[in-house]
Amino acid sequence: DFMHALEEVKPAFGVSEEELATCIQNGIVSFSSGIENILQEGRLFIQQVRQSERTPLVSVLMHGPSGSGKTALAASIAMASEFPFVKLISPESMIGYTEASKVAAINKVFNDSYKSPLSVVVVDNIERLLDWVPIGPRFSNAVLQALMVLLRKQPPKGRRLLILATTTERSVLQQMDLLSCFDSDLPVPTVNTEEELAHVLKTTDAFSEAEVRGITQELEGLTGSNHVGVGIKRILTMIETARQDEDAPGRFVELTSKAIAQAGPRRVV
Amino acid sequence: DFMHALEEVKPAFGVSEEELATCIQNGIVSFSSGIENILQEGRLFIQQVRQSERTPLVSVLMHGPSGSGKTALAASIAMASEFPFVKLISPESMIGYTEASKVAAINKVFNDSYKSPLSVVVVDNIERLLDWVPIGPRFSNAVLQALMVLLRKQPPKGRRLLILATTTERSVLQQMDLLSCFDSDLPVPTVNTEEELAHVLKTTDAFSEAEVRGITQELEGLTGSNHVGVGIKRILTMIETARQDEDAPGRFVELTSKAIAQAGPRRVV
Amino acid sequence: DFMHALEEVKPAFGVSEEELATCIQNGIVSFSSGIENILQEGRLFIQQVRQSERTPLVSVLMHGPSGSGKTALAASIAMASEFPFVKLISPESMIGYTEASKVAAINKVFNDSYKSPLSVVVVDNIERLLDWVPIGPRFSNAVLQALMVLLRKQPPKGRRLLILATTTERSVLQQMDLLSCFDSDLPVPTVNTEEELAHVLKTTDAFSEAEVRGITQELEGLTGSNHVGVGIKRILTMIETARQDEDAPGRFVELTSKAIAQAGPRRVV
Amino acid sequence: DFMHALEEVKPAFGVSEEELATCIQNGIVSFSSGIENILQEGRLFIQQVRQSERTPLVSVLMHGPSGSGKTALAASIAMASEFPFVKLISPESMIGYTEASKVAAINKVFNDSYKSPLSVVVVDNIERLLDWVPIGPRFSNAVLQALMVLLRKQPPKGRRLLILATTTERSVLQQMDLLSCFDSDLPVPTVNTEEELAHVLKTTDAFSEAEVRGITQELEGLTGSNHVGVGIKRILTMIETARQDEDAPGRFVELTSKAIAQAGPRRVV
Amino acid sequence: DFMHALEEVKPAFGVSEEELATCIQNGIVSFSSGIENILQEGRLFIQQVRQSERTPLVSVLMHGPSGSGKTALAASIAMASEFPFVKLISPESMIGYTEASKVAAINKVFNDSYKSPLSVVVVDNIERLLDWVPIGPRFSNAVLQALMVLLRKQPPKGRRLLILATTTERSVLQQMDLLSCFDSDLPVPTVNTEEELAHVLKTTDAFSEAEVRGITQELEGLTGSNHVGVGIKRILTMIETARQDEDAPGRFVELTSKAIAQAGPRRVV
Amino acid sequence: DFMHALEEVKPAFGVSEEELATCIQNGIVSFSSGIENILQEGRLFIQQVRQSERTPLVSVLMHGPSGSGKTALAASIAMASEFPFVKLISPESMIGYTEASKVAAINKVFNDSYKSPLSVVVVDNIERLLDWVPIGPRFSNAVLQALMVLLRKQPPKGRRLLILATTTERSVLQQMDLLSCFDSDLPVPTVNTEEELAHVLKTTDAFSEAEVRGITQELEGLTGSNHVGVGIKRILTMIETARQDEDAPGRFVELTSKAIAQAGPRRVV
Ligand SMILES: Nc1ncnc2c1ncn2[C@@H]1O[C@H](COP(=O)(O)OP(=O)(O)OP(=O)(O)O)[C@@H](O)[C@H]1O
Ligand SMILES: Nc1ncnc2c1ncn2[C@@H]1O[C@H](COP(=O)(O)OP(=O)(O)OP(=O)(O)O)[C@@H](O)[C@H]1O
Ligand SMILES: Nc1ncnc2c1ncn2[C@@H]1O[C@H](COP(=O)(O)OP(=O)(O)OP(=O)(O)O)[C@@H](O)[C@H]1O
Ligand SMILES: Nc1ncnc2c1ncn2[C@@H]1O[C@H](COP(=O)(O)OP(=O)(O)OP(=O)(O)O)[C@@H](O)[C@H]1O
Ligand SMILES: Nc1ncnc2c1ncn2[C@@H]1O[C@H](COP(=O)(O)OP(=O)(O)OP(=O)(O)O)[C@@H](O)[C@H]1O
Ligand SMILES: Nc1ncnc2c1ncn2[C@@H]1O[C@H](COP(=O)(O)OP(=O)(O)OP(=O)(O)O)[C@@H](O)[C@H]1O
Ligand SMILES: [Mg+2]
Ligand SMILES: [Mg+2]
Ligand SMILES: [Mg+2]
Ligand SMILES: [Mg+2]
Ligand SMILES: [Mg+2]
Ligand SMILES: [Mg+2]
Repeated sequence: DFMHALEEVKPAFGVSEEELATCIQNGIVSFSSGIENILQEGRLFIQQVRQSERTPLVSVLMHGPSGSGKTALAASIAMASEFPFVKLISPESMIGYTEASKVAAINKVFNDSYKSPLSVVVVDNIERLLDWVPIGPRFSNAVLQALMVLLRKQPPKGRRLLILATTTERSVLQQMDLLSCFDSDLPVPTVNTEEELAHVLKTTDAFSEAEVRGITQELEGLTGSNHVGVGIKRILTMIETARQDEDAPGRFVELTSKAIAQAGPRRVV
Repeated sequence: DFMHALEEVKPAFGVSEEELATCIQNGIVSFSSGIENILQEGRLFIQQVRQSERTPLVSVLMHGPSGSGKTALAASIAMASEFPFVKLISPESMIGYTEASKVAAINKVFNDSYKSPLSVVVVDNIERLLDWVPIGPRFSNAVLQALMVLLRKQPPKGRRLLILATTTERSVLQQMDLLSCFDSDLPVPTVNTEEELAHVLKTTDAFSEAEVRGITQELEGLTGSNHVGVGIKRILTMIETARQDEDAPGRFVELTSKAIAQAGPRRVV
Repeated sequence: DFMHALEEVKPAFGVSEEELATCIQNGIVSFSSGIENILQEGRLFIQQVRQSERTPLVSVLMHGPSGSGKTALAASIAMASEFPFVKLISPESMIGYTEASKVAAINKVFNDSYKSPLSVVVVDNIERLLDWVPIGPRFSNAVLQALMVLLRKQPPKGRRLLILATTTERSVLQQMDLLSCFDSDLPVPTVNTEEELAHVLKTTDAFSEAEVRGITQELEGLTGSNHVGVGIKRILTMIETARQDEDAPGRFVELTSKAIAQAGPRRVV
Repeated sequence: DFMHALEEVKPAFGVSEEELATCIQNGIVSFSSGIENILQEGRLFIQQVRQSERTPLVSVLMHGPSGSGKTALAASIAMASEFPFVKLISPESMIGYTEASKVAAINKVFNDSYKSPLSVVVVDNIERLLDWVPIGPRFSNAVLQALMVLLRKQPPKGRRLLILATTTERSVLQQMDLLSCFDSDLPVPTVNTEEELAHVLKTTDAFSEAEVRGITQELEGLTGSNHVGVGIKRILTMIETARQDEDAPGRFVELTSKAIAQAGPRRVV
Repeated sequence: DFMHALEEVKPAFGVSEEELATCIQNGIVSFSSGIENILQEGRLFIQQVRQSERTPLVSVLMHGPSGSGKTALAASIAMASEFPFVKLISPESMIGYTEASKVAAINKVFNDSYKSPLSVVVVDNIERLLDWVPIGPRFSNAVLQALMVLLRKQPPKGRRLLILATTTERSVLQQMDLLSCFDSDLPVPTVNTEEELAHVLKTTDAFSEAEVRGITQELEGLTGSNHVGVGIKRILTMIETARQDEDAPGRFVELTSKAIAQAGPRRVV
Repeated sequence: DFMHALEEVKPAFGVSEEELATCIQNGIVSFSSGIENILQEGRLFIQQVRQSERTPLVSVLMHGPSGSGKTALAASIAMASEFPFVKLISPESMIGYTEASKVAAINKVFNDSYKSPLSVVVVDNIERLLDWVPIGPRFSNAVLQALMVLLRKQPPKGRRLLILATTTERSVLQQMDLLSCFDSDLPVPTVNTEEELAHVLKTTDAFSEAEVRGITQELEGLTGSNHVGVGIKRILTMIETARQDEDAPGRFVELTSKAIAQAGPRRVV
């Protein structure tokens, strides 16, 4: 209760920089033109909110498979806006919340944003905010309904707001009619070709150039195709795991092959 | 609790003009005869409530796809009535309400209306008031039952009431037997032909006449038909998004084509 | 709470005349022999309760499509009894009630009736008291179970009770085994023939004799049959709506045709 | 609360004679040998409880269609036992109870019975105690589980108990595994033949002998068979309703034909 | 609350002899070798718990049709152990408990057992502890989960525990994955042959030797097979019911034939 | 409440050695190379957490059939880490907890771990933490959602965490999308060959070498294959049960044959 009280008084305005920074812990590797496109689209939406009189509210959904870098990209765009209000709504800060307190917390961030002339609200991991599980399926309808209204609620006169949301479950959002509440949706690409993979491997300095060549050749042989379809986050983790092994490149090939096999049916964009 | 107390004492009578005005933020563009018809029907219902002894209660449902202008049209009709009591019941003011407080808030507006000789109550976005979601499906039966009764409850002697409701989910309302509680239902048209689209584009001054001609020609080619079927609200948003791009007309064609493709299976009236 | 307290002390006995009178706002138009039959059956049930020692409890279900005049007819029969206790149980006075308070309110009326030697209780719109919705389906089992017991509970020695209930959902009541709790059920007819329609039109003085003839002829042509199947309440409303139009008879034909088309699959009795 | 307090102190022991008497308001007409058999079986069970050391608990289920006289017969057997403790558990005294208070009330009667050397507990209308409704289906599992345990719980040393339960829903009880909790089940017959019907009609003195003959002949013609299959309670009610009519025998034939038609698929024993 | 307080302080240790004794009210008739086997298995499990260092916890499920003597056999084995802590967990002592208080009561018995060097806990009638009903199906998942954990939770160092559970619903337990929580399961046989039946009849002294012979011969004829498949408890009850009749052997044959017919599809082991 | 208070103040840091030790009560028998592999993988994950800057969080799922030794292996790896914070989250310490207190307890262990530079959290028996039951199916979505977030929540700067989870229900976790929250998953093998079984039997000293040979020969004959597929825990229990019998080897063969037959459809790795 005391903790709660403290929470209440913490300044509602400003930019939660630290929180956003930890979302981009490992930087943004420019491994494909898709990544550049997303950042450019983000800049245009920022500009639209800043300039257009007729659209004081713009909402964008960033979707892609698990670990494809959605949160990092949304955080980058948000921080680059330099708007006076930039906040993150994330399931990590709501563990164990009741449906009602979740809705209240989400609503508060939006209400706070309405007090700033220009704001960005990042709604991270919507399926988790909704407590979505495919068995049933089950989810929090209270949170869903609140989001449906907040995604379309006009800010008061003179206020402008950009909403950046992320999800791995675009089709679920569509079934819920939540997708149609967004003005725009942006697919986030995985690492899709051996060249893109090589780009990433080189950036991390984990392997020698020769090792990188060996890895991509072996993968090409193993997968019999040039599609990788694995998220950047997972690639970065597998590099670290492989490094613990005596035969690091061998272990990396083994882990990546398995990941490619699993990603198979999901390979998006 | 204090906030709640404040809410309780705010005058129950009168017209919530500001709220209604923000519903018509971008005016009413007369892009088709369908729009004129709706406004005319609205005037006749106002007159019936004002004049007929036998029908002190008239209820009308305005339905159409997302962003077709339902709320703006209902607000226009309501304000034009110049009745002493004109109120809006909207999900935006009930985020995070429990079912019971939602029912109480809705019931209060109706009870207040019964104290004025002539009233209009706008019940906006019924599917959202009902917390409707197609997965399940799930919805608030408490709110539904309250609406079913309120839509048919005769005002006390000497009081007259027009109810204007809006929804994107007419067929859902029908499955719920809510549709049969209305005296009348009015379909709200989308922008359906290239001519109607050109009308809208010209009104907004976003493009030159030549650009407008180019856009409609290209769309005709792309869609292979003269049906557009996109809501006016969406059109207005896409104009603003396109404007941020160097090649604004090109971007507009791209966005609109996508919207037309999506609207495809829903193209109504 | 204070309101509640007031409610508690209001006299439990007597006849709620005003409430019953508003149910018959537009009188009873004797448009067919079916209407006469119902009133006559009503008189016989009143007499049975007054005279028979062996049946101190008689329960009757009046069912028919929406707006067919069920409530008005039940109210007429109840008032004509001149019993010292005549009360109406209606969803309109229970908006926002919890299941438990609904059951308590219903039970109270019955318990009050047991204190009068002769009573009529009108249980209006059972499907609404049950919060019935076909999606699911969902309904209040607590209210259902209370009604099932109250419809068969013998009044104490020396007390007699007639229960008049109304519903549009006879088949739902049957699925719930509620139908078998009634001693008798009476179908309430709609306006079924052009002659009956003409009778109603003449009674209301809304059209000249020639206009009435024109209307019925045109409808005969349009529907290709002499079945109308629309409730009296709806007919009366459509007359008023049509009257606002310059071409009142034309508008009436248009509205009625639509109503007949919709009523099609439901045309009862 | 005060009422509740009063209820608490009312003597737990003894015989609720008045309540039981009202169950047999119209006596027991011996219209068939089936009725005699049931009463004889009842006497044997009373004797077993009184005499056998090894079976201090005997439970019997009486089942038959609605209005077949189950409650009246159970009440007759119970009163004839002349045991010092005879109580009725009936849904009529539990309207609006929560599940928990229902279970508590039922449990209390059993606990009270354990204090008497010889007891009869009548558990009337089990499907209603269970809040059973076929839509869903829905029912109170808390009440069901309590009954399942109480029907098999041995009374303390030196105490003997006969449980007489009634139901119209034997097959539902079977689906719930509740049927197997009874030591014995007794079917209660309806009025099944024209002779049995004539017997009942003669007993009530409502018609002359000639009228009775006329009625049975006409019914024989109408139904084309000698099965009637209508409960005694319903027959008695129809006699009274018919009596209000000028042509009482005619009305009786009409009402009975309808009842036979409805009873058709259920005609039991 | 006061009652509750009393319950809290009642000694947690020791043996609930009286309770266990009433479970074996009519002794153990040794009608088949199956009965001897079960008692022998029970003795071996007691010995394992007393002697083995590696298995401080042993859990056994006794299953068989309703009335086959499961509880009596479990109680016999438990009492024969002469362990210092022997307790019964039974639905009879938990009528009307909430899920939470049921779990707490069960957990308490186990926690108490952990304080004794050697313990037996009898978990009687698991399907009833779980509030199991096949319609739905419905059951208490809270109780189930608690049992799943308690059946595998190692007692603290130096403590040993034998768990004896009973059920009629072995296949339900299997569907719930509860069966795999037991180390062993023992089927409890019914009275299966005419010889076994004769054995039981002789033991009870209800019939003369000649009558017993007559009964078994008649049953052999009637059933056309030597399978009986009825639980010992039911046999004992039917003997008592038959005794009330003038023709006791005839009545016994009648009752048993019916019971055999019903048991047909369930005839186990 | 007082108990609860005590619980609150117990030191959040440190290693719960005793608890972990009881998980390895019967040591780790190295019956196959699979066991060695798991322990080696465990050491590498410990090293990755200790050394890699980029992966401050590593999560591993250990899965295998009931009794295959998952908990013992996870506990071994955790203790071998010698990290300053090593804690066990287990359903055994949460019997009767509400969903909310379960989530709070789990969250607390993670929050505590974030205060130590290096931590291991063992999440034991996930399907039980989730109150999973296949009938329905039913489970605690609140616990599931909390785990989904905690398994991916980055520890604060400078903190490193290894999560070791165990489950028998890998495919259920996959259906819930929980599997994709782990960085890695490790299958835990059962005793699969007669040689492995012989290894275990020799280690326990329960049988002479000749008896061991006899047992494996007989099993080979009985099963007609060299697959055993039974968990080590079950094997150890069956040895103790067999020991109580006069013919211990015979009884062991009997019990093991039954266990192999049951394990048939599940035989994993
Ligand atoms: N091009 C890139 N795009 C996004 N992230 C990148 C990129 N290059 C490197 N990264 C790093 O990869 C990680 C991406 O993880 P992030 O949490 O954003 O993925 P996600 O898609 O949100 O995952 P989840 O589905 O679990 O929410 C971050 O640590 C980020 O610094
Ligand atoms: N002919 C028109 N009809 C309605 N709105 C118009 C028209 N012309 C311009 N507009 C503008 O278009 C917008 C219509 O948005 P509105 O919110 O009314 O749509 P809606 O159908 O209620 O959307 P939603 O389905 O999201 O509730 C308003 O800003 C309004 O000013
Ligand atoms: N013959 C008639 N029978 C019944 N009502 C009549 C008749 N003639 C005129 N009326 C008028 O028609 C209206 C009937 O409406 P009423 O509310 O009774 O219908 P209802 O069937 O109860 O409707 P709902 O299905 O909405 O409950 C009343 O205003 C009544 O005065
Ligand atoms: N032979 C008979 N058996 C039972 N009741 C009889 C008999 N003869 C006359 N009656 C009278 O018939 C009525 C039987 O009604 P009762 O309430 O016992 O039927 P029920 O089967 O319990 O009905 P329900 O299904 O509604 O519970 C009683 O008023 C009773 O006095
Ligand atoms: N061989 C026997 N085994 C068990 N009980 C016996 C035996 N012989 C006689 N009895 C008596 O039969 C009765 C068995 O009833 P018990 O309650 O144990 O059956 P149950 O299977 O537990 O029944 P339920 O399925 O109702 O729980 C007891 O009264 C017991 O004294
Ligand atoms: N190689 C081994 N691996 C694991 N446990 C072993 C091994 N050898 C002996 N054991 C012993 O076997 C037992 C394994 O039981 P454990 O509880 O770990 O199994 P589990 O798979 O977690 O079971 P459950 O599915 O019930 O959770 C422990 O007592 C452990 O000491
Ligand atoms: Mg993310
Ligand atoms: Mg709208
Ligand atoms: Mg009505
Ligand atoms: Mg009855
Ligand atoms: Mg038992
Ligand atoms: Mg384990």
